[in-house]
Amino acid sequence: MNRRVELVWEDLERIRAEAPLVHNITNYVVMNLTANALLALGASPVMAHAEEEVEQMAGLARALVINIGTLSGAWIRSMLVAGHAARRKGIPVVLDPVGAGATSFRTGTALRLIRELSPAVVRGNASEIRALAYEEGGTKGVDSARTSEEALDAAQALSARCGTVAVVSGAVDLVVSGAAVARIANGHPLMPKVTGLGCTATALVGAFAAVNPSASDAAAHAMAVMGIAGELAAARSSGPGSFVPAFLDSLYCLEAADIQRLLKAPSA
Amino acid sequence: MNRRVELVWEDLERIRAEAPLVHNITNYVVMNLTANALLALGASPVMAHAEEEVEQMAGLARALVINIGTLSGAWIRSMLVAGHAARRKGIPVVLDPVGAGATSFRTGTALRLIRELSPAVVRGNASEIRALAYEEGGTKGVDSARTSEEALDAAQALSARCGTVAVVSGAVDLVVSGAAVARIANGHPLMPKVTGLGCTATALVGAFAAVNPSASDAAAHAMAVMGIAGELAAARSSGPGSFVPAFLDSLYCLEAADIQRLLKAPSA
Amino acid sequence: MNRRVELVWEDLERIRAEAPLVHNITNYVVMNLTANALLALGASPVMAHAEEEVEQMAGLARALVINIGTLSGAWIRSMLVAGHAARRKGIPVVLDPVGAGATSFRTGTALRLIRELSPAVVRGNASEIRALAYEEGGTKGVDSARTSEEALDAAQALSARCGTVAVVSGAVDLVVSGAAVARIANGHPLMPKVTGLGCTATALVGAFAAVNPSASDAAAHAMAVMGIAGELAAARSSGPGSFVPAFLDSLYCLEAADIQRLLKAPSA
Repeated sequence: MNRRVELVWEDLERIRAEAPLVHNITNYVVMNLTANALLALGASPVMAHAEEEVEQMAGLARALVINIGTLSGAWIRSMLVAGHAARRKGIPVVLDPVGAGATSFRTGTALRLIRELSPAVVRGNASEIRALAYEEGGTKGVDSARTSEEALDAAQALSARCGTVAVVSGAVDLVVSGAAVARIANGHPLMPKVTGLGCTATALVGAFAAVNPSASDAAAHAMAVMGIAGELAAARSSGPGSFVPAFLDSLYCLEAADIQRLLKAPSA
Repeated sequence: MNRRVELVWEDLERIRAEAPLVHNITNYVVMNLTANALLALGASPVMAHAEEEVEQMAGLARALVINIGTLSGAWIRSMLVAGHAARRKGIPVVLDPVGAGATSFRTGTALRLIRELSPAVVRGNASEIRALAYEEGGTKGVDSARTSEEALDAAQALSARCGTVAVVSGAVDLVVSGAAVARIANGHPLMPKVTGLGCTATALVGAFAAVNPSASDAAAHAMAVMGIAGELAAARSSGPGSFVPAFLDSLYCLEAADIQRLLKAPSA
Repeated sequence: MNRRVELVWEDLERIRAEAPLVHNITNYVVMNLTANALLALGASPVMAHAEEEVEQMAGLARALVINIGTLSGAWIRSMLVAGHAARRKGIPVVLDPVGAGATSFRTGTALRLIRELSPAVVRGNASEIRALAYEEGGTKGVDSARTSEEALDAAQALSARCGTVAVVSGAVDLVVSGAAVARIANGHPLMPKVTGLGCTATALVGAFAAVNPSASDAAAHAMAVMGIAGELAAARSSGPGSFVPAFLDSLYCLEAADIQRLLKAPSA
């Protein structure tokens, strides 16, 4: 096994052994898939969004994942309370700025969460990352027509300005930490045809960040596992419907040999 | 290909080519399935319900789908704001009055949304359409024991009174526009055993209405595609669980030849 | 068929014949799975949580299932209104105290619901039942490392103190009614790897309680059907992803012969 494969596998084994609790404040559309993906990976998901309990729940967790996919005022308050609790406790905060750029409410909320919570990792598609870096609007909802490379500058600007690891999802995923860029070229064209796989990637980043203190390594390893499980699933699917159960099965059954055989990390 | 088959196929090709953004304010139970069905069809779904952003989101969309399945006060306000924005922009509003007749809160809200937003299409089961036409209660929750033909009069009354296309789902779907009635006899008995397929049909009507200015044609074409994909899925399913992934696969893979072979539109 | 098998089967046939309406106020993560499982079983699910309608909806239902998995203040008020309506009407209330013990908000809310609504059945995992019986914290979110037998005393205390049937899920499920304990040893190790199967079990208890006036029998029969369908599904699954559709198919297709062949009710 080469060293990168070993490192991905060590993180995955640690997640399976320790089952870290990952606290998610996420959107309604993907809650079920996110929870199932974290369970299939080996982590322990919990979803909790009430202002009355998020501080205590974050205090039990080893990572906090915040996703703004179906936002409203009360949820923003809880995201801030949970985020501050996570920071005080020293656990990583991972942010998914779903739809940033589509509405000023989303862009503004994502920027506020970044400013106040200094997330360890922000993962989005090219349009979302550009919207955050350049406060640029006009993305078409939650999907993206741009390639990830078109957001490399934006990811570097965001990373430098906010001290965060910026992950740009796409056919090739970019993991940007200051000047350093890692690329993961795993995944399958069927994946953007399934709702919530981007959100799932963000949740997996949370699980990896719970066991690996390097946010950029955690992010790269999570994106690799995501993409490899996706390739294995696509090979056994007839379309985006059968992809989902196959993806969860692949995550659950993933072996070191799969990572060895399939990992495409050209810049590693 | 006969003309009706051609028209259904042309709409489907247009959706796949243009990926129209469909803004959904829908219920918690079906959000994931609805988003996945719209993606599998070729459209771009977005879910957004916050009063702070629905106007802007509707402004990016080509159709607005409102579904009252898990209603509360704040969501009704957002439905109205989004609906008025959609009307100002001139994009179609499609309404699913889930559970109308079961509680006065639902019946009253659905009637208010119809009155204030003049939706292009209202799609429900026989009990729901009767409840709206006759302000009649007593439906048993969200399912319906009635056949669609038992709601033909009600659909005609609703269509005439509100200037909407009224769609009654059932073993035979009715698409009623004033005095005109189209019937679609596709579908499978397994479909009522899966939660949210009615809501999914409504979302597909939204996608077809985004590309076809005739609301009655859009509704008929959407119901045909829904039923045909359902028949293809049922042939590869062992029950309502395996039906769902098979249905999404069928939507994604649907070809003109499938429509040609399976379309049952007796009144067309 | 032995008598216990006959009794389980009679309840299942009654559900399939009568399709009792089960009103659920449950969490966002599991709503879709819960609704689909109730439909596959033969019941009629409805989800409704608005304070404006829960009284009327509970008035149409034959059982009310309350689940605190994604709690907030407004939902608690609705749970209480619906619960009081259910009690006045004389239909069973079934409670799932998801995450009790993890936060004081959850523990306190679950205890309040028990105190005010006297649920016929409370179903949780060992940590949750212990948290309610001993007002003990420190559970790790919503999953449980304890065996159900470690919560037998707690279940007995809770049952005696609150006059409820206490069900402890685990590799062996305990159904505790005062001094009486029934054990169901069905199920499969894959089941805790799927989110919401505990919540689904609680919803099935609601459906059985709608047709069987003995809360302890209803609970035992529901847990048996849950576990048997799970075993059938696991035999046809490649992991937790493919388990879910297979589980719903198994529920839908379940026959008396399956129950006869698989039921493991050692204390029956």
